[in-house]
Amino acid sequence: MTDLTTHLPSLEATTLDIAKNLIARESVTPADAGCQSFMADYLSLCGFTTEHLDFGDTQNIWSVRGQQSPCLVFAGHTDVVPPGNLSNWQTNPFDPVEKDGYLYGRGAADMKGSLAAMLTATSRFVSDFPEHRGSIAFLITSDEEGPFINGTVKVVETLMQRKQVIDYAIVGEPSSTQTLGDVIKIGRRGSLTGYVILKGIQGHVAYPHLADNAIHRASHFISKLVNIHWDHGNEHFPPTSLQVTNVSAGEASNIIPGEIAIEFNLRYSTEQTHQKIQQTIEQVLNQFADNYELNWKLNGEPFLTQSHDLIDAVSQAIEQVNGIKTSPETSGGTSDGRFIAKTGAQIVELGPVNKTIHQVNECVKISELEQLSDMYYQTMKKLLA
Amino acid sequence: MTDLTTHLPSLEATTLDIAKNLIARESVTPADAGCQSFMADYLSLCGFTTEHLDFGDTQNIWSVRGQQSPCLVFAGHTDVVPPGNLSNWQTNPFDPVEKDGYLYGRGAADMKGSLAAMLTATSRFVSDFPEHRGSIAFLITSDEEGPFINGTVKVVETLMQRKQVIDYAIVGEPSSTQTLGDVIKIGRRGSLTGYVILKGIQGHVAYPHLADNAIHRASHFISKLVNIHWDHGNEHFPPTSLQVTNVSAGEASNIIPGEIAIEFNLRYSTEQTHQKIQQTIEQVLNQFADNYELNWKLNGEPFLTQSHDLIDAVSQAIEQVNGIKTSPETSGGTSDGRFIAKTGAQIVELGPVNKTIHQVNECVKISELEQLSDMYYQTMKKLLA
Ligand SMILES: [Zn+2]
Ligand SMILES: [Zn+2]
Repeated sequence: MTDLTTHLPSLEATTLDIAKNLIARESVTPADAGCQSFMADYLSLCGFTTEHLDFGDTQNIWSVRGQQSPCLVFAGHTDVVPPGNLSNWQTNPFDPVEKDGYLYGRGAADMKGSLAAMLTATSRFVSDFPEHRGSIAFLITSDEEGPFINGTVKVVETLMQRKQVIDYAIVGEPSSTQTLGDVIKIGRRGSLTGYVILKGIQGHVAYPHLADNAIHRASHFISKLVNIHWDHGNEHFPPTSLQVTNVSAGEASNIIPGEIAIEFNLRYSTEQTHQKIQQTIEQVLNQFADNYELNWKLNGEPFLTQSHDLIDAVSQAIEQVNGIKTSPETSGGTSDGRFIAKTGAQIVELGPVNKTIHQVNECVKISELEQLSDMYYQTMKKLLA
Repeated sequence: MTDLTTHLPSLEATTLDIAKNLIARESVTPADAGCQSFMADYLSLCGFTTEHLDFGDTQNIWSVRGQQSPCLVFAGHTDVVPPGNLSNWQTNPFDPVEKDGYLYGRGAADMKGSLAAMLTATSRFVSDFPEHRGSIAFLITSDEEGPFINGTVKVVETLMQRKQVIDYAIVGEPSSTQTLGDVIKIGRRGSLTGYVILKGIQGHVAYPHLADNAIHRASHFISKLVNIHWDHGNEHFPPTSLQVTNVSAGEASNIIPGEIAIEFNLRYSTEQTHQKIQQTIEQVLNQFADNYELNWKLNGEPFLTQSHDLIDAVSQAIEQVNGIKTSPETSGGTSDGRFIAKTGAQIVELGPVNKTIHQVNECVKISELEQLSDMYYQTMKKLLA
């Protein structure tokens, strides 16, 4: 195989060429493997100035062309999840392979294909409209799939300290389900994790009157917890959902356990706040336990893009490129959109079909790579031309 | 230290001497370390004939004097539980040490002290009553603290095949709580363990509608299970009690678990049968799960000595020796008595104070060793003189 990663960026390169170059770089979180330098070099050919904003083990770039309003940001990540069991891959995950109209490789759909499409769309746009209004920026991190500590969240903090305004952000997450553009994300549910250590009194099964079984208390607590009806959701959000993900207790067959560890996660709509949820759960816990530790991790607050400029521009661009009427949704996991939302930006996520992401034999339809580039181009044209 | 374990048995030895000899043998389950040969040698001086009935890794002896009815059996075990953390022992657990009126060492109370008392009581009895009626036997195993597969249960099976009748069995388990003889056991609760693998459908927390959370199902099941009122117990037994001892489920913070493992144990009175319990629990499980594996382990059925000859003899012997009115109980864990009960024998457990058993610094009051021997002697006298 040709070492794609040594190729210098060229504005002649197709979206497919660039996607392959990025896939060939083994950038498992938080590694970047030169993806961001490659992007910065490419963007400099388009008149962008790049700032490296690295934090801890994470590399980030903030690359800008222009200083005027409105500011449109392409946001994404160069890192990929680990390939998993290599023997289940039909190809080498870091060797991009074209087969039957698809490009295979780790990150093809999440989200090196999107990054490539953002670059070619931008190159085409600044060439067609060198005097475009506003400014264009790229906010790229190498830690989206990881613990989200030193990536987009830190870059956004830095930008907000500088009073950098972001009007529109297009996040390249693979939003599509069957065909490119059938779904865009205009918000995301909040995600809140709770950790409980519920305590009783350890003892011997033969002497239950001397013990206080932590599993028994926990079963009453969980049984009540999972029956809570939180809300009906609303126009934009599905109902809030709680799932207990881990329970662990027990020492030996003849020991009544004195404590149990419970972990649960909520995906919540804008009908809730994390404060309201925490308060309710603590009340339920107090009904069944008088000795416990309760800790929370707020993975992301819910956000929703309510202004229509960006949503309309992206929706029209999709329809123009492949004739699809997109469906704006808020379902699925979290994304870095939640951090950018704090700036007040309108946010839309548009990217490839997500069927194979985080799985073996990840792939993207080759024809949809150029279509995606075209969708990004048409969106820019509507907002900045 | 003198190597006690090389001493030949002598009928001059005190109960304390013999207890020390046995403690010095490191007979952690299923090891016997020569205890049984020592006992057999001692008993042969008393006119007993010993048969070694070893099964697998377990040594057992069946030692008899006489062939007439009634047959009185001393039952016990030479094995001990591991010493645990040696640094928490004030003495070497296998070096018997007398201190402040107590004999320290692993097995002092459970139950090498009892074995020593059985031997000296027997020696004294056959010397005082060489023409006693009936027969006397010792049923001793090296696996009472272990998985109870090749010990008393197998010996009893063998004896029953031979139509050996056992009328009375005195088990040397440490039954006393504060003072020697304050409690005797005249039966034991049954013990039944259940193992459930309850299955749902694994999924991602962001897509709960595609999954079926096994923890949620289990919490409803357990919550109902532990609220079942089984019975009030009866004159001889405390109420049946169920304790969930282990639960384990969960893979990752964002995965809805597709299965959960649950283990529970019941200690049950003679108001129940294991069949009745199993049926009830399966019905409850069916309310909350439609896909599960359920397995049972019957550790022991409940037994109760209802005839009064042996209970009366032991109770009177206790009162005679130290003036205590004993309390006949069925509380606590299981014992090998449950296997001997299958022969139809009357069973009483009488042994030292159990405060320190299975713990570091296990000990027995030295004055109570000779008292215990005297209690066994007086019991024999009442039944066989
Ligand atoms: Zn992604
Ligand atoms: Zn014992």
